Amino acid sequence: MVYFDNAATSFPKPNTVYDAIMEAMKDYGANPGRSGHKLALKSSRGIFETRELIAKLFNIRNPMNVILTFNCTESLNLAIKGILKRGDHVITTSMEHNSVLRPLKYLEKEGIETTIVKGDSMGRINPLDIQKSIKPNTKLIVTTHISNLTGTIMPIDAIGKIAKEHGIFYLVDGAQSAGVYDIDVDKMNIDMLAFPGHKCLFGPQGTGGLYVREGIDIEDVFQGGTGSISYSLDQPDIRPDKYESGTPNAPGIIGLGAGIKYILDRGIDNIRSHEEELTQHFIEEITKIEGIKAYGPLNVKEQGAVVSLNIREEDSSEISFVLDEEYDIAVRPGLHCAPLAHKTIGTFEQGVVRFSFGPYNTHEEIEFAVKALREIAREI
Amino acid sequence: MVYFDNAATSFPKPNTVYDAIMEAMKDYGANPGRSGHKLALKSSRGIFETRELIAKLFNIRNPMNVILTFNCTESLNLAIKGILKRGDHVITTSMEHNSVLRPLKYLEKEGIETTIVKGDSMGRINPLDIQKSIKPNTKLIVTTHISNLTGTIMPIDAIGKIAKEHGIFYLVDGAQSAGVYDIDVDKMNIDMLAFPGHKCLFGPQGTGGLYVREGIDIEDVFQGGTGSISYSLDQPDIRPDKYESGTPNAPGIIGLGAGIKYILDRGIDNIRSHEEELTQHFIEEITKIEGIKAYGPLNVKEQGAVVSLNIREEDSSEISFVLDEEYDIAVRPGLHCAPLAHKTIGTFEQGVVRFSFGPYNTHEEIEFAVKALREIAREI
Repeated sequence: MVYFDNAATSFPKPNTVYDAIMEAMKDYGANPGRSGHKLALKSSRGIFETRELIAKLFNIRNPMNVILTFNCTESLNLAIKGILKRGDHVITTSMEHNSVLRPLKYLEKEGIETTIVKGDSMGRINPLDIQKSIKPNTKLIVTTHISNLTGTIMPIDAIGKIAKEHGIFYLVDGAQSAGVYDIDVDKMNIDMLAFPGHKCLFGPQGTGGLYVREGIDIEDVFQGGTGSISYSLDQPDIRPDKYESGTPNAPGIIGLGAGIKYILDRGIDNIRSHEEELTQHFIEEITKIEGIKAYGPLNVKEQGAVVSLNIREEDSSEISFVLDEEYDIAVRPGLHCAPLAHKTIGTFEQGVVRFSFGPYNTHEEIEFAVKALREIAREI
Repeated sequence: MVYFDNAATSFPKPNTVYDAIMEAMKDYGANPGRSGHKLALKSSRGIFETRELIAKLFNIRNPMNVILTFNCTESLNLAIKGILKRGDHVITTSMEHNSVLRPLKYLEKEGIETTIVKGDSMGRINPLDIQKSIKPNTKLIVTTHISNLTGTIMPIDAIGKIAKEHGIFYLVDGAQSAGVYDIDVDKMNIDMLAFPGHKCLFGPQGTGGLYVREGIDIEDVFQGGTGSISYSLDQPDIRPDKYESGTPNAPGIIGLGAGIKYILDRGIDNIRSHEEELTQHFIEEITKIEGIKAYGPLNVKEQGAVVSLNIREEDSSEISFVLDEEYDIAVRPGLHCAPLAHKTIGTFEQGVVRFSFGPYNTHEEIEFAVKALREIAREI
């Protein structure tokens, strides 16, 4: 089986991740931060270690500013709803995932106004368009780092500068980039960074995180037991407890830590180079095939390890089905929970067939997929 | 090591749970409900199977009314915040966990009024006290099924009847009961049932659920990608998608399914009998020890597998520390995220040492703990 659906979830994970999860479950599967016995303390320490590894990866000074969540959608909802109040204005882009667009749409009825800056046909966002959309009541800019549809790398550096100059908070959705592309929250003026655990960070599903810069006060969405200040009925006003109610996914978080260690050991630059080579290889080959239309910048300086394509007018689900059934190649068709991005590049009706690569993919697999696409394009 | 902290998280889990999680991660670790390839479909099917098993266990007719969450705290927040609106009145009890009390405290500033019915010194709630608290604007009654402090079994049958008679919604917190005590949402007039995956259902941490009766419309808290109706910026108004945004904890949910299968195979009555025997044995022995004060009804007809105690005036953390360090017995001291319950039974200052038993505990372990307590009580 050839797995080219890494943008949905990375697979497989490093063996150290599976081992860490299993050890956490079998050897010290207690509730972290609740009791004081040895197993509970070991579990708590494992979670803190992951917090520190995340902080190291994104150059976050204080690990307590890393909120551990259960997925990137929770992180984005927490950030967006935690900061926006009635009368605020927020700027986002047409290249966002529904995990950004749907919370913003929901907030419209709460009196929050959204401007959606449109990307070009390759999914690129012009930072000047963002600057021009700023109003006196603009409180937040939220953009993805890498499009989950076209792989387009967004100019987050430039947007971060604009946000800083205007005193506006900047939230980055690192769903497709965290773990592969350098993210330095300080240098890049990122006020909040949302990321999933189960994609490029190689943790299991059920993990994610949100960095919130020191001094930014966002509201909590859930309240409950935190194992801290238990005598009070008020949610503790300390980080990260304020945002982490109830039992966390301890084995998952510990597995996420093992995933980040893998990245640090192999080297983020080495992982990125490998993915860039695969992506470039794939782009070069498929653009030679008659009948294939590929989307995005088609150039790894501007594009992550995500390549979307169509074969003539054929429905994307049909092509994906054939790839799965006849070639055992796993890709993702359809709208990828990003309807406006599809409208932006003109594929809202047809969808696209999305290929997304990871560190365990090989050039042989790329060749195999290219051969498959060549055959399918010939037959259709 | 003797693990008596099952009320915090059950440990160990059945081996089939570990195996199911590992298989889901290693053999088909794709993103369920997002793509259409074989691995993704297998993962989706695994999740649906868990939904069906949950439905079977609680006599829920339609598995789509089971919302899968990441912990019981999320389930309770979703239920409480989803149903209460400004001007509503809610009745709860002093025996609740902070996962109920803190959301209600939070909602006070949103104009929602709470009445807290007080338990007696054994943590028992009189249904008549709940009935007497009903006002014209009472929208919701929320109570735990079994206290996480005293193990007291609440009269949920009687409360369910009262709620139904008055057209009030009834939310049950099954954190300490789901998987050991019979819960039939129809017979018991339970409109919403919140439960964790990682306690008596033997799933891993990072899993939980909320049943919401057909026809009750609760609001969604998070919005995002659901893999359904992706063309729309509005959150889909279908169950369970409306409440399940972003990537779920698929391996965890599949592990939870294996946990429920274990319960159905071993028999919920057999598990409960085993725990009742252990609890009765423990209660009988410790109540003979001079200097020990035990709390709750101290009778397994009224008490689950949770027994809290103190030794004279000694701090509960100190006793727990000695049990852990000198006897390798894991228990939980302190306030157990239930401050009002501690006030109810008079242990707010001292805390208690909580013992909680599970299906893997044995009478030998009970004997060993009793011996340890006897020694400690003699020395202090």
